[in-house]
Order: sequence, then C-alpha cells, then structure tokens
Amino acid sequence: MPSDFFRIEKLSGKARLGRLSTLHAEIETPVFMPVGTAASVKSIPQDTLEELGAQIILANTYHLYLRPGVETVRNMGGLHGFMAWPRAILTDSGGFQVFSLNELRKVTEEGVTFRSHLDGSSHFFSPESAMEAQIGLGADIIMAFDECTEYPADKSRVRASMELTARWAERSKQYFEEHANQYQVPSTQYPENREGNPNNWVRGTGYSQLLFGIVQGGMDRGLRKESAEQTIEIGFPGYAIGGLSVGEPRELTREIVESTLEYLPRDKPRYLMGVGTPEEIVEYARLGIDMMDCVLPTRAARHGLLFTSEGKISIKQARYAQDPGPLDPKCGCRACRRYSRAYLRHLYAANEMLAQVLNTIHNLSFYLDTMRRVRHAISLGE
Amino acid sequence: MPSDFFRIEKLSGKARLGRLSTLHAEIETPVFMPVGTAASVKSIPQDTLEELGAQIILANTYHLYLRPGVETVRNMGGLHGFMAWPRAILTDSGGFQVFSLNELRKVTEEGVTFRSHLDGSSHFFSPESAMEAQIGLGADIIMAFDECTEYPADKSRVRASMELTARWAERSKQYFEEHANQYQVPSTQYPENREGNPNNWVRGTGYSQLLFGIVQGGMDRGLRKESAEQTIEIGFPGYAIGGLSVGEPRELTREIVESTLEYLPRDKPRYLMGVGTPEEIVEYARLGIDMMDCVLPTRAARHGLLFTSEGKISIKQARYAQDPGPLDPKCGCRACRRYSRAYLRHLYAANEMLAQVLNTIHNLSFYLDTMRRVRHAISLGE
Repeated sequence: MPSDFFRIEKLSGKARLGRLSTLHAEIETPVFMPVGTAASVKSIPQDTLEELGAQIILANTYHLYLRPGVETVRNMGGLHGFMAWPRAILTDSGGFQVFSLNELRKVTEEGVTFRSHLDGSSHFFSPESAMEAQIGLGADIIMAFDECTEYPADKSRVRASMELTARWAERSKQYFEEHANQYQVPSTQYPENREGNPNNWVRGTGYSQLLFGIVQGGMDRGLRKESAEQTIEIGFPGYAIGGLSVGEPRELTREIVESTLEYLPRDKPRYLMGVGTPEEIVEYARLGIDMMDCVLPTRAARHGLLFTSEGKISIKQARYAQDPGPLDPKCGCRACRRYSRAYLRHLYAANEMLAQVLNTIHNLSFYLDTMRRVRHAISLGE
Repeated sequence: MPSDFFRIEKLSGKARLGRLSTLHAEIETPVFMPVGTAASVKSIPQDTLEELGAQIILANTYHLYLRPGVETVRNMGGLHGFMAWPRAILTDSGGFQVFSLNELRKVTEEGVTFRSHLDGSSHFFSPESAMEAQIGLGADIIMAFDECTEYPADKSRVRASMELTARWAERSKQYFEEHANQYQVPSTQYPENREGNPNNWVRGTGYSQLLFGIVQGGMDRGLRKESAEQTIEIGFPGYAIGGLSVGEPRELTREIVESTLEYLPRDKPRYLMGVGTPEEIVEYARLGIDMMDCVLPTRAARHGLLFTSEGKISIKQARYAQDPGPLDPKCGCRACRRYSRAYLRHLYAANEMLAQVLNTIHNLSFYLDTMRRVRHAISLGE
C-alpha cells in the first residue's frame, strides 16, 4: 500500500484537515459517516446520499453477515456492487452488535458465541471469522474484532476485556494480512457499467482495504493509555476509539477522548466510534478526531427530531401544524427548499413514509453541512 | 370558464388523445393519476413525482378532512401550497371511503353519518359539506358526492342508490356553483416563491375548479344508462364512472365500462375510478377513457409486487437473491438504472424502507410510461 494514504493538509489547533485515500474513493477529513446498517441508509436512495455529499458510509458486519449473508454480498461485487455505491464504505467488526444486541452471548478466548436477533439461531464470531466476513464484504475500511466493554465495569474487568481486545487485534491483523486482497471486487453493479464485463474489476485508487485497530479501556485514563500503546504496538494504518457512548456522562466521554488522543500517532487517521450530537462532532473534530459515525441523525429523524440552525425541533408538536416556514431557513436541503413545517408535521402525524424520507434527508444534510463547515474553518485556520 | 378546457386532438378507434386545462396545469390524456391519499404519494418526494412525469395526482377528501383538516390545508394555500405540488390534483368526494372504511355508516336522504377510522369520532358528510371540503382543499378537479353501491346488490337496491346519487349530484352542483371560487389559493408555499407576497395568488391557467359528476348503477347496463342520462341532464364538465372494481369479475367491469361509455358525451373528459392493472389501463384507454386512478402500483410496490415489461415479479422470492440484473431491463427509472434485483430483494427481505421507495418509483414509472406509450400510439393512429 502506498504510504501516503493519509495526508494532513492543514492544522488548526489540534484540529486536522486531512485527505484519506481508500480503495474506492478519497475522503476529506474530518468526516461524518452516515450509518447504513443493512447496506442502506434507511429510506434514502444512493443518489440522494451522493447529492448530500456523503463521502463514506458505515455498514454493520453483524447485520449483513446474518442477512443477506457475506457470500451473497461477495458474489454481487462486494458491498459497493451490491448496493451500487461507488464512494467509500467502512464496516464495523460485528463486535459492538454482538455485545449490544445479545443478552445470551458467551465470550471465550477464542471468540463470541451469540444468537441471531432475527431468528435465535446460534453463531460464532472470532477475530478470524470477523475478518473473513469483512474481507468478503469488501469495504474500504474494516475494523479489528474487539470486545466493547460494558459500562459501568470495575477496573479488573475493564483490564481483562482490554487485554482480550489487544490479543484479538493481533489475531485480526494476522488473518487480514494473510487473506486480504484475495477477493477482487467486481464493479458490474455500478450504474456506469452495468453492461460492462464482469471481469472489469474495481481498480480504484490503487489502495487496498485498510484495517483499523480499536482502543478500549473503559472510562479509565490509564487503561486507555495502555490500550492505545498495545494497539499501536501491533500497528495499524488507523486507530479507532471504541467503547464510548455506552451510557456514560457526556463530560466523561470527552475526557476519555481527549486523553486517549494524546497517545495516538499524529500521522494516522483517528476514528471516534458512535458519536454524537451536532455540537459533539464539532467539538471532537476540534480535539483532533478525523472520522465519526452515529445513528443519531437518521434515528432521530425517524422519531421526528430534527436538528436545525435554530436548535432541535420536534416536528410532531401541534405548534407547527400551520407553520408555513421551512424547517430550517438556513438549510438548502430538498426538504427545506420545498416543504413547510406544517406539511412535515402532517406527514409525521399521519404516519406517512415520506416523513421519514424528508426528515432523514434534512438531518443528514445538517450533519454533513456541519462537518463541511468544520473543514472550511480548519482550512481558514479558525 | 373558457369552454375549451378539454380538447380532443386525435382519435384512434375509440381512443382519444386529449388536452385538459385545469386551474394549475394542463394534462395530456389519457392520463394515469397516482394516488396520494393523505397529500403524499406514499414514500415519494414531490420532485421525484415530477421527474416520473406525473401530471396529476389524486388525494382523498375523507382522509384529509379527518387529518390535518380542511381548514389547515386551506390556510396553507390549499393542497397545492400545503404539499408543494404545482401540477394538477383531483380530490375524490369522500363518498367511496365513507362506504369502504365504515361498517357503521348511516345513510339518509340528507347525507351519511360515519365514524372516523382514526379515533371512532362521529362525522357527517352531505353533498354540501363534501363540496365545502373540496372547495377548501382547492384541487383542480373535484367530484360530486355519491353513494358507491355495494356489490352484489339487487336491482331495486341499485336503482334506489343510483337515484340518491343523482339527487346528491344535483345538490353538489348547486352548492359548488354558489360557493366555488370564493376561496383563492395563495401560492406562498411554492418553492419558486416561498419568499413571495402572501397575496401572490395562483393565477394559473385562468380556469376554475372543475366539478365532475359520477355515474353509478351497479352492474346493470340499463341502470348505468339511466344514471348516465340523469347525470348528463344535471350537466358537468366531466363524467366519472364510479362503483366499479368493487369485487365484481374483471370481464363484467369491462362490459359495464364499454356500455356506459356509449352514453357519455364525446366532448367531455371521462374518468374511470379505481382502475386497474397495466393491461386494463391500456384497454380502457382504447375504449375511450381519458383518466384513471388506482392504488395498485403504489400498494403492490409496498408488498414487493413489481410490474415489468416481462410481467409481474414478486421481488421477495429467493430466486432473486443473487440476480445481478436490473428489475426491468427496458425501464429507465432510478431503481432500474442503478440497482440489481438482488439488492431490491435484500431491501425487501430486510424490511428496509428503501425497498418501498424504490419499488414505488418503479411501479409508478411503469404505469406512467405505459400511459405515455398509449398516448404516443394514439398520436400515430395505432
């Protein structure tokens, strides 16, 4: 892999304006990644995501492994071919979902036995099988298989969990290095070349899949430092901070992020997993985070909670029933350009699917615009 | 109203190529009208409807009267302003929903008492109140309040129902003539002039709302003839054939349509309500029908039933799980241009909202393209 896959083009305080080159696309950082759990950002067609300026989306290995299955996705040209998305994709390792969706999981040194939330069937994820799945899905960035430590947990439990994560990171890397790039990703599903030769492989940027390591260590600054050091010792092209936003107070999240960042290499991308509100993504970019993902904009949209330049709006409220104004007068998204708050309120109250479509478009637009403004501010040195 | 609001530009057999001028827009006929019950064609943004070439959509008075209420819609600039739709709209009278959604309705000479399917509250529709509601909603074409006769029904029952419909048509017309055009429709919600003066009324085409009469008479050709004559005697700018597609055999529907058409004036638009399959809309256009609406393309889409140039497809079937081809190779819609059957099948199986969005786009595209081809064929005299 070319060593210049990540270039920092500008610093402003601790904030970094960067350019991350992946297998399929270049990404400007700091970047927000919309969540497309089952190979779809809920209710949003891919061309609309492109129009919104999404550079990279996240998909969940756990969900795709269960349905439609890795083999199906691989046969359809990997996630990019399967969902007809030419820009970058990141898959998580499945670790977080195994822990958050499974009460009955069983963790051993070897891996995790869990039950499908769909049909109760029994499955097993190890660092090796999680890598195999992610190599098959073919995302641009894939994640080491980790244990997301529950919160709260006592120090000995956090340490044991963190050390398991480090051993799993080592195994993840080893499997990845032995097996990556054995699957080429055909691009026959791409709109540009549906008629094309099935052997017309993605050549993209010349870069290969990137495997990122994950720092754990719970809410203990010392353990976070140890975890960072262990993970860096193994060596990855990028580092994620995992195990946050799991119920702890927001101020604590920020403290842990800030202290963990001190131990992460400055020349590698840093990904804060599962965060956050619009204010938080700005704040974390300021602290030097390069990548973030969160279900908040999409999930909140489906509950009628909308982020605007004037604050948060619950569109279901009766006060908007005859409000002729746009949702956010400063927003240029399709929802704000065309529809009134009154109409959006009606769609929500009448349980019309279009409510979810338009609300999601707006919230994603707000998040992606926010990050665009952050990048602009860094470029100006602000 | 200018007398040339409907012009027949070409005949081919009994089929007619026409141009219908309404308050907001001109419509090429024969036309298929997508159904947008609660002021939204389910899951589809208005700009996508425009892109699909929808010239006129149908909304349901019954649903809008209950939620958000006629006053709200009127205050937001009528349906056009409320839903930000600049092209034509037709509202039904509420009669059909009162009959199909209400087991406990009570019909008197005066009107119908019914219970809301939303909260069980009691309401009353008369020809006068149905007109008042439709004038307030401000659609381009509105419908007389009728009784949709149940099927099967004996001849005396059908006759009584048909005569009630005729008396109600008379009252509908009288109320409409006394009250129409008293509400101007502000266009402040339109995207072009959101910033505009609230007194910037729609001037549109210079035409006013059009009230169409409805022919009933069950499955009896003689009664259909009588009903047509009674309705024409009252006099409307257009005539609908109602009370079909209510459970009778398809062949009977066709017979009744064909015989009823003989009694309808050739120089007025003819609207067949609630019909039909792609084959049927072609067939009815051939018989001389100018307008049709049906929930079939949108409702079937939500159940994964897709109309294609190669026949009907149930996308949920496992046989499509790894099918890399487009849904319909002859279709140029957004769904067929970009996605594979495998992906559409996955979205449906995973209960992803995008399934409904893409399936609906395709089915509407198929219907609207079908009607476009019908118009083209008539213009060529085929």
